[in-house]
Amino acid sequence: MAKIPSWAFDDLALGQTFPLGPKHVTAEEIIAFASEFDMQPMHLDEAAGKASLLGGLAASGWHTCSMFMRMVCDALLLDSTSQGAPGVEYARWRRPVLAGDTLSGETEIVALRRSEKRPRIGYVTCRHRVWNQHGDIVLELENAGMFLTREAVA
Amino acid sequence: MAKIPSWAFDDLALGQTFPLGPKHVTAEEIIAFASEFDMQPMHLDEAAGKASLLGGLAASGWHTCSMFMRMVCDALLLDSTSQGAPGVEYARWRRPVLAGDTLSGETEIVALRRSEKRPRIGYVTCRHRVWNQHGDIVLELENAGMFLTREAVA
Repeated sequence: MAKIPSWAFDDLALGQTFPLGPKHVTAEEIIAFASEFDMQPMHLDEAAGKASLLGGLAASGWHTCSMFMRMVCDALLLDSTSQGAPGVEYARWRRPVLAGDTLSGETEIVALRRSEKRPRIGYVTCRHRVWNQHGDIVLELENAGMFLTREAVA
Repeated sequence: MAKIPSWAFDDLALGQTFPLGPKHVTAEEIIAFASEFDMQPMHLDEAAGKASLLGGLAASGWHTCSMFMRMVCDALLLDSTSQGAPGVEYARWRRPVLAGDTLSGETEIVALRRSEKRPRIGYVTCRHRVWNQHGDIVLELENAGMFLTREAVA
């Protein structure tokens, strides 16, 4: 690692928060993602979106998760000892993400646990929330990432 | 809807399965996705991947989920009355998805429930599994999608 990252497992505290975004979402991005990964009509076409439960051209839920991931990378992970995550506890797509929306959010640390098998690794459980420009939550999810300890990168 | 889809809520049965894939995963795809959504080094660079817990240039977990979504679209959703899903119960990235892997999988219907609030809609809970060319599970997830009833599209 060329640079010692700011955030190792030991540097993170229960209740600590990181602001996410803002991220503006365009129709072009929604359609590009959907064309590759989720070709359901409401993610490809404004009229089909309006006719659906989503009410407009709406991002695939996986696109919303991916945009969220980029926001967490920028807010925390890329300047940390993150080693990835074994999964997601849950993800709730609370409201549609529509073309033209601007997303912001917050990551909160809700649990910290050093690995018993691998003492150089700690698990950091985060609760993430993403909302749109109206303050409406669009995504909630929780997961546990693995971070190297400060000792492991010293 | 121009064409009546093959799979409405009423057509789906408990225990029914749909095969997913195959989908070949290239280094270029892994890097392209990561460059936009998950710029952690192990998703961008072979050497960084080898040095990480993942053991090689590995797809972002969200990329794996997105490739899975495309497989489910092709296997079921695009010829169905799917109206999207409110979220994901859980997702487990069991093993890394590495450049050169070929993914296959199976979607199994594990619960069916007609909406009480919206009689034209039913919830279809699916357990999804994706494995690599060695038969090792790389992704498990469960979620409940909303499908229109046959009556609603007749």
